[in-house]
Amino acid sequence: MPVLIVGSIALDDIKTPLAEHLNLLGGSASYGAVSASNFCPVLLVGIVGEDFPKEHIELLKSRQIDLDGLQIVPGKTFRWSGEYMWDMNTRETRSVELNVFEHFTPVLPESYRSPSIVLLANIAPDLQHHVLDQVASPRFVIADTMDLWINIAKDSLIRLLGRVNMLILNDGEARQLTGATSLIKAGRAIQALGPQYVAIKKGEHGCLLFGKKGQFFSCPAYPLEDIHDPTGAGDTFAGGLAGFLARDTEGRDVTFAALCQAVVYGSVMASYNVEAFSLERLKTVDAPQIAERFALFQKISRFDQA
Amino acid sequence: MPVLIVGSIALDDIKTPLAEHLNLLGGSASYGAVSASNFCPVLLVGIVGEDFPKEHIELLKSRQIDLDGLQIVPGKTFRWSGEYMWDMNTRETRSVELNVFEHFTPVLPESYRSPSIVLLANIAPDLQHHVLDQVASPRFVIADTMDLWINIAKDSLIRLLGRVNMLILNDGEARQLTGATSLIKAGRAIQALGPQYVAIKKGEHGCLLFGKKGQFFSCPAYPLEDIHDPTGAGDTFAGGLAGFLARDTEGRDVTFAALCQAVVYGSVMASYNVEAFSLERLKTVDAPQIAERFALFQKISRFDQA
Repeated sequence: MPVLIVGSIALDDIKTPLAEHLNLLGGSASYGAVSASNFCPVLLVGIVGEDFPKEHIELLKSRQIDLDGLQIVPGKTFRWSGEYMWDMNTRETRSVELNVFEHFTPVLPESYRSPSIVLLANIAPDLQHHVLDQVASPRFVIADTMDLWINIAKDSLIRLLGRVNMLILNDGEARQLTGATSLIKAGRAIQALGPQYVAIKKGEHGCLLFGKKGQFFSCPAYPLEDIHDPTGAGDTFAGGLAGFLARDTEGRDVTFAALCQAVVYGSVMASYNVEAFSLERLKTVDAPQIAERFALFQKISRFDQA
Repeated sequence: MPVLIVGSIALDDIKTPLAEHLNLLGGSASYGAVSASNFCPVLLVGIVGEDFPKEHIELLKSRQIDLDGLQIVPGKTFRWSGEYMWDMNTRETRSVELNVFEHFTPVLPESYRSPSIVLLANIAPDLQHHVLDQVASPRFVIADTMDLWINIAKDSLIRLLGRVNMLILNDGEARQLTGATSLIKAGRAIQALGPQYVAIKKGEHGCLLFGKKGQFFSCPAYPLEDIHDPTGAGDTFAGGLAGFLARDTEGRDVTFAALCQAVVYGSVMASYNVEAFSLERLKTVDAPQIAERFALFQKISRFDQA
């Protein structure tokens, strides 16, 4: 069963303390779709301008990614430029050009309207609503978000929380959204706003998953020594998580046990993604490599019983 | 087999955003010894003044803690006063009175000189050296430290690293000691200075354990919603870790598998300790409660195989 993914498709200029690269493929839907395509077919919803390089289209086509929902319109593709500080954690946005994204109205092809799993990757909550309006009773809906939307579109985001099964956000955003200092309190507070499940990403500290009736899972981070480009790590995480769920839970209810595995697969994909700029590493990852790192996550979090 | 513990014994005044308490039992050796005493007999080395309350002596005596190495001398007991900020993570030291601690020279009774496991709890590195000078070939030596010693006694601390099997410190201290941003790099860099094993405590994010030849373990944090007093959490962690090792590895080499369990037991003890001021919660924890929370650590970090 395919996963439906809507989000941004961008051309990024990225500077780190070690290197700078221009005109890279980026955007939440690009990272999410390529990540998910390791697990299941993807129905992609997004928009690009006529300047969008053919090679990127070819990359997406070469995976099991359906582009019927990709609008290619006159104008320029959404552009983002950012710089990472010395610790590779702090990021400064240098410029944003919405371009064709400014008037984007996602319209789902008929073939997209009964997806089993939906990933509303990081875009404006209003657009996430708009996509949800067009799909018929999906089995599981995951929403990703970011600090920007908590700042400028909080009402729409809060309304969205009543329509999704799971919210993904990072630790700072969880604290920002709830006002809670404790991430445990923040996770529970977000659940009270709607989603049965909440995943709080903590970067180098892994990820917390909150489930029904106090269910809780703490996923470690992969012990990477060097990060080359953190861009898209969260999108890649969300894509891997959603893709694995679509493959693993086909025709079945999504269980907490499956979500724990999905969080690990998301973390595996993200750990590969940050090893190179843009999608350079992500697009070469194969099934044996994914299995290898999944096993390593198991090894580093295992301890003997009492 | 007993564990030998040397460290500070203090009277603390502690203020949190919610409460303030004066004249509390504190100090790295107090927390460490009571924590360890849940697992094995303890040989305590420390110093207090004649003002040290009898009830605290009685508490220590009531556990399996040998006080032959406790000096009670004319003068006042070491005093520390601190305040926690709203997030319970940032701490400000309001005052320190070394008192009898200023001229402390640990002298080990004859019965203390062949311990199997030694915990050099957080005190000045010179004192940690002095204790090590008096013990005959212990099987495993663990040292705890803090930012203060990295600032004012770095040379002595670095020399100590060549004499211990394991160093325990927190994330900020690991970065401070090594200059590395990545905690993975920091852990490896500390190993290169001497200790085969390094435990980096990350507060609400759990703990990382580095072993030989790339061995690595990521221990989650217990999902506590409310922390009443973080004082002594690190000391309690170290005490539980050392106490478990002494009990579990009696007569055997310390393995990485045992250290992983020890890190979990240390985390269990610390998670209880922060539930109340001073040692109020720690001194009531019993074996079934320890076992219960150990099982919970296992539950929250477990996920199914691929």
